[in-house]
Amino acid sequence: MEPFEVHILGCGSALPTTRHNASSQVVRIGNKLFMIDCGEGTQLQLRRGHIHFSFINHIFISHLHGDHCFGLIGLISTFGLLGRTAPLHIYADRKLEELLQPQIDFYCKGMNYPVFFHHIDATRHEVIFEDNTITVETLPQNHRIPCCGFLFKEKPKRRHLIGDAVNYYNIPIYMRQAIKDGADFITPEGETIPNCRLTKDADPSRSYAYCSDTLPCPGNCEYIKDVDLLYHEATFADSEQARAKSTHHSTAREAAKIAKEAGAKRLAIGHYSSRYDDSSTLQQEANELFPGTECADEGMVFSI
Amino acid sequence: MEPFEVHILGCGSALPTTRHNASSQVVRIGNKLFMIDCGEGTQLQLRRGHIHFSFINHIFISHLHGDHCFGLIGLISTFGLLGRTAPLHIYADRKLEELLQPQIDFYCKGMNYPVFFHHIDATRHEVIFEDNTITVETLPQNHRIPCCGFLFKEKPKRRHLIGDAVNYYNIPIYMRQAIKDGADFITPEGETIPNCRLTKDADPSRSYAYCSDTLPCPGNCEYIKDVDLLYHEATFADSEQARAKSTHHSTAREAAKIAKEAGAKRLAIGHYSSRYDDSSTLQQEANELFPGTECADEGMVFSI
Repeated sequence: MEPFEVHILGCGSALPTTRHNASSQVVRIGNKLFMIDCGEGTQLQLRRGHIHFSFINHIFISHLHGDHCFGLIGLISTFGLLGRTAPLHIYADRKLEELLQPQIDFYCKGMNYPVFFHHIDATRHEVIFEDNTITVETLPQNHRIPCCGFLFKEKPKRRHLIGDAVNYYNIPIYMRQAIKDGADFITPEGETIPNCRLTKDADPSRSYAYCSDTLPCPGNCEYIKDVDLLYHEATFADSEQARAKSTHHSTAREAAKIAKEAGAKRLAIGHYSSRYDDSSTLQQEANELFPGTECADEGMVFSI
Repeated sequence: MEPFEVHILGCGSALPTTRHNASSQVVRIGNKLFMIDCGEGTQLQLRRGHIHFSFINHIFISHLHGDHCFGLIGLISTFGLLGRTAPLHIYADRKLEELLQPQIDFYCKGMNYPVFFHHIDATRHEVIFEDNTITVETLPQNHRIPCCGFLFKEKPKRRHLIGDAVNYYNIPIYMRQAIKDGADFITPEGETIPNCRLTKDADPSRSYAYCSDTLPCPGNCEYIKDVDLLYHEATFADSEQARAKSTHHSTAREAAKIAKEAGAKRLAIGHYSSRYDDSSTLQQEANELFPGTECADEGMVFSI
């Protein structure tokens, strides 16, 4: 199967620390790279992770708090200095364009690629990106300002031809795509060979959901049902439950509850408050509801 | 003597690398901290250097290329999150206010301190900051856009009283400041005691000059004459002389030439192009004209 990976560039929260960078991730599906959020210092994290700048064509910004978007102008500028010509697409609240375009106009004069802004309506669940293999959907979040998560889903894949059967029935090349799509084969003698004798099951369609920053949103569970990997913010421990509520964030336990309700196969937590020297308490509290919870860290790669 | 230090937070150039951060320095004079330039990631470098955010009240921006100012919005935002109440003064080209103020208004809602912008005319040599102990002057540079360096100078200090003489002549406390300022002492009997018998020389007034980014500007040598430490950009080696000229930067050798002409006591070079894996060639070429040239590096502190 093609790689489907989530590279953690930053999983800290509002105050950057020497332990954690501001939020950013790269989702790699095949040879396509998608960025989610772009806090200050993201371009350096890309370098540290040896991730190819030029393969990033789409950036999804969950919301306009600085720790999720202050790295954009530096990244856009560096793309320009590196001679990029491919368009860059940014999906974000419409206010971002208003704030960023004047900066691009001034700081990035003479750069040879266009930046296209796609406005997100964070209150709606909808497909905002689609190509031949994946879709990206918004997941409305409950934060202090408009905010949405993102669900990356592979489209259903074609079935695998069984080599022996293809040879045995001497299936012409021009018919093979249709058979991969589920068609039966009719021999020159008029016999119908059912598809199940010609193909094996397709690879499963994998999915990844990113939920940050937000109070728990059980309403999203139906959209992320059975997701292969859920990254959910877990800014606080139980002891800071009140603070989580007042700042519209989640505790690790709440993140685990969402993962459980959604039937997520794996849960990664992140967006740790700077008050925690390490993530052990958060992991422990999440584990009580969702055993095997993984703690994101800069440089980690989750393979799906 | 009070500390007079230059803390290097970043000494790379336009393209950040894993070796060098974008430009930023903190000049510490006594317990006052002044920031020069603020590239992306500067707030993290402050944390790494254990530098107190709250003692920074004045930020001087040499010019509006991203590697010298993209870290400002993150720093301003973090100041706000940390509960800052003291005003912050930013000295920069007038365009910065136009670009930054809308970002502050949107991203830093509810922060409890004001940001004051002071517009610099980079074509002029003038005092742009002054308090009871120091002055900061602009040094016009020759770059692709308006750009100036900064000269930090301690004001002349008071002479030191000689304890034995003070006791011998029983000099009243209320007269001591005047004597530190150079006055003679007239005894109750009418005898004039010359100042030189009562005081020792004042501590020297120290100075620091920051020159980046620029073609060599010999015209500034008169302003920085005998400077204790000159930080001069040295983006390129001799082999890239043509490129230095076309991009309005200096070679290490040119930096050394300016230091020599100005009679600088020490020279530190920085703003290295990302093409150099280390600064040895640059140091070697500068050393030929200015022996003892020091190469800036992140985390280094120059004590003056």
